[in-house]
Amino acid sequence: MTDFPETPRSVPAPPVVGMVGAGQLARMISQAATGLGTGFRVLAGAADESAAQVVAGTRIGDYRSLADLRAFAAGCDVVTFDHEHVPGEHLAVLEQEGVTVRPGPAALRFTQDKLAMRERLTGLGLTCPRFAPVRTLAEVEAFAGGTWPVVLKAVSGGYDGRGVWVCESAAEASTVLADMGLAHGIELMAEEFVAFDRELAVVAARSPHRQGAVYPVVETVQRDGICREVIAPAPGLTAGRRAAAQELALLIAKALGVTGLLAVELFETKDRLLVNELAMRPHNTGHWTIEGARTSQFEQHLRAVLDLPLGSPEMTAPAAVMANVLGGDDADVYDRYIHVMAADPAVKVHMYGKPVRPGRKIGHVTAIGDDPAELADRARRAASYLRWGKEDGN
Amino acid sequence: MTDFPETPRSVPAPPVVGMVGAGQLARMISQAATGLGTGFRVLAGAADESAAQVVAGTRIGDYRSLADLRAFAAGCDVVTFDHEHVPGEHLAVLEQEGVTVRPGPAALRFTQDKLAMRERLTGLGLTCPRFAPVRTLAEVEAFAGGTWPVVLKAVSGGYDGRGVWVCESAAEASTVLADMGLAHGIELMAEEFVAFDRELAVVAARSPHRQGAVYPVVETVQRDGICREVIAPAPGLTAGRRAAAQELALLIAKALGVTGLLAVELFETKDRLLVNELAMRPHNTGHWTIEGARTSQFEQHLRAVLDLPLGSPEMTAPAAVMANVLGGDDADVYDRYIHVMAADPAVKVHMYGKPVRPGRKIGHVTAIGDDPAELADRARRAASYLRWGKEDGN
Repeated sequence: MTDFPETPRSVPAPPVVGMVGAGQLARMISQAATGLGTGFRVLAGAADESAAQVVAGTRIGDYRSLADLRAFAAGCDVVTFDHEHVPGEHLAVLEQEGVTVRPGPAALRFTQDKLAMRERLTGLGLTCPRFAPVRTLAEVEAFAGGTWPVVLKAVSGGYDGRGVWVCESAAEASTVLADMGLAHGIELMAEEFVAFDRELAVVAARSPHRQGAVYPVVETVQRDGICREVIAPAPGLTAGRRAAAQELALLIAKALGVTGLLAVELFETKDRLLVNELAMRPHNTGHWTIEGARTSQFEQHLRAVLDLPLGSPEMTAPAAVMANVLGGDDADVYDRYIHVMAADPAVKVHMYGKPVRPGRKIGHVTAIGDDPAELADRARRAASYLRWGKEDGN
Repeated sequence: MTDFPETPRSVPAPPVVGMVGAGQLARMISQAATGLGTGFRVLAGAADESAAQVVAGTRIGDYRSLADLRAFAAGCDVVTFDHEHVPGEHLAVLEQEGVTVRPGPAALRFTQDKLAMRERLTGLGLTCPRFAPVRTLAEVEAFAGGTWPVVLKAVSGGYDGRGVWVCESAAEASTVLADMGLAHGIELMAEEFVAFDRELAVVAARSPHRQGAVYPVVETVQRDGICREVIAPAPGLTAGRRAAAQELALLIAKALGVTGLLAVELFETKDRLLVNELAMRPHNTGHWTIEGARTSQFEQHLRAVLDLPLGSPEMTAPAAVMANVLGGDDADVYDRYIHVMAADPAVKVHMYGKPVRPGRKIGHVTAIGDDPAELADRARRAASYLRWGKEDGN
């Protein structure tokens, strides 16, 4: 009996998609690749990463190393991404060498450089929070014009609330500037603090063939900068806003030359829809599509980067609610399966195989049905129990 | 950059399910295991088998070798099966040595020995085709009593129409006896030929904790002994028949001590429901549950063998139709994805990564919605196109 390290290929073999990064997005896309019967590989930093645990086609390497990226790409027909952190200059080299990179570095740049993103989107006439690059406290104070809070952001490298500081005063801004800008050389920008009514998100897909598809607009609930719940479709959204948000996503995907998925996070106020963030990969606000849409966002990303016709983004039920499972104090999540599954046999539990650390996203649960309030209650209770062993405090 | 052959485990690790066999059932159950976050391994005969292509935890070995089974089981908390062909005596040894085998050999025997199955089920008072063991033509003729056709079956080892011969005359029976019984030493039995109106199937699950759950009764369409289509729920089934079929499955699961899934294939006539075949694993007649039920049969099997509470078998839509994709003459199935996906963006394609051989099951497609006739048409067209590159002759 021997172990089996290499993915075999039948002839004629379907194309191989290689995903750089082996987090939960790569893990969930592997389920879709298995269903479609396409080849699938991940480039993992370590053997215990979420997707590396389950994907036969796992390679270990450093996404910051051009040599590792090149070796990984050599076995793949298309290279795509689980995160935004691959250096753009490496991707440009791969592309020059003939590697099919989707999305390409020209598009990915707008997820890696928030200042470039803001400039591009405002150039397209889209509504964004007011912004400016800042290096000094004087520049931040000039931007504020006496109105606080002001948001300071790292231009590159932030995620899940990291790299974002809401400054209530010039003193707070001064601390961020000193800690980040001066101590760590992090490039910063200032943004208008938007007193939004709620946050929305919309996921679209665009293929090299220029087909587009867009999912229903969802409401997202964030706490401490981390997405906690997603309600699909966004309750009470006007038809005009719905159409505007979906058109916005398709327009950005086209204008930026996205191939694959584009997730657009939005602020909704009484008068406006403002673009908050972009991502070009499967997104936490689209996990509900696994059960809640005819085509999951994971299958859709594969179809888009393979230039296959896109799948139907239609919902499978009137409503879906996803709640993230965050790590709590007790690492033995599996021990709590019995209660959660017995209490609600129809809720779907997805766990990522990640070591439990307090506050870290380690899984999600989804409930599908008719009444968003009832579904949210069920999803919240299951997620809370998986975190804490009790049904509150999620 | 190095390859990564071994599944790592975090602490405390969830249990590891080991499946003996690496066909499409193991491949699809791997998707469910990835979602639940349980450990999952397969014992494959060769590195290019369907599940071995995608599962990180693949071991290569021979399911007929006690040593290989023992080595495989050593890394697993529960051992279960993708097929019925593991020698019962080996499983009995493993069980004696403390391995958790689900279903256990005492239950599996009734899928490995059709004569034992018939005797047990008739002993339970269930309706089966009339049957008898046969060794000679005289015994077959005595069984027939002048009424032909008579069905001859291999007592062990048949599947997908292999090991079943419908004999229209004593001369045909004589040929089967000579070819199979005498030339290959295959033990045979005779069965009444049932002139059924249609074939039905029902999948139930039973956990060691003795919880039971049962899916809706489906209609199955077979051609040449191979399942071609499954319509869920079975159209026009009376409430009485539906309840009887579901109760039958739960009763058999309990009486035989099944842990995991039990699939019961039935003949429906004007007056009777007769048990045709049993399987104790995910079953082709349950593939529709991936999209069509809250809990797929694959997740349900994992929950059952792990003794977790069972998931809801409720349907996600009024109807679902699955059509098997059989191999045709042209092996390049992937080349036909574009047409199928463009023609019907909501049909779900599942391919098994198996080399194409004419008539072999290489994938399936599922359509979900309201009208079974419309869904059957869509599923058939997609399956036919994937087989032939045209929309007929499936």
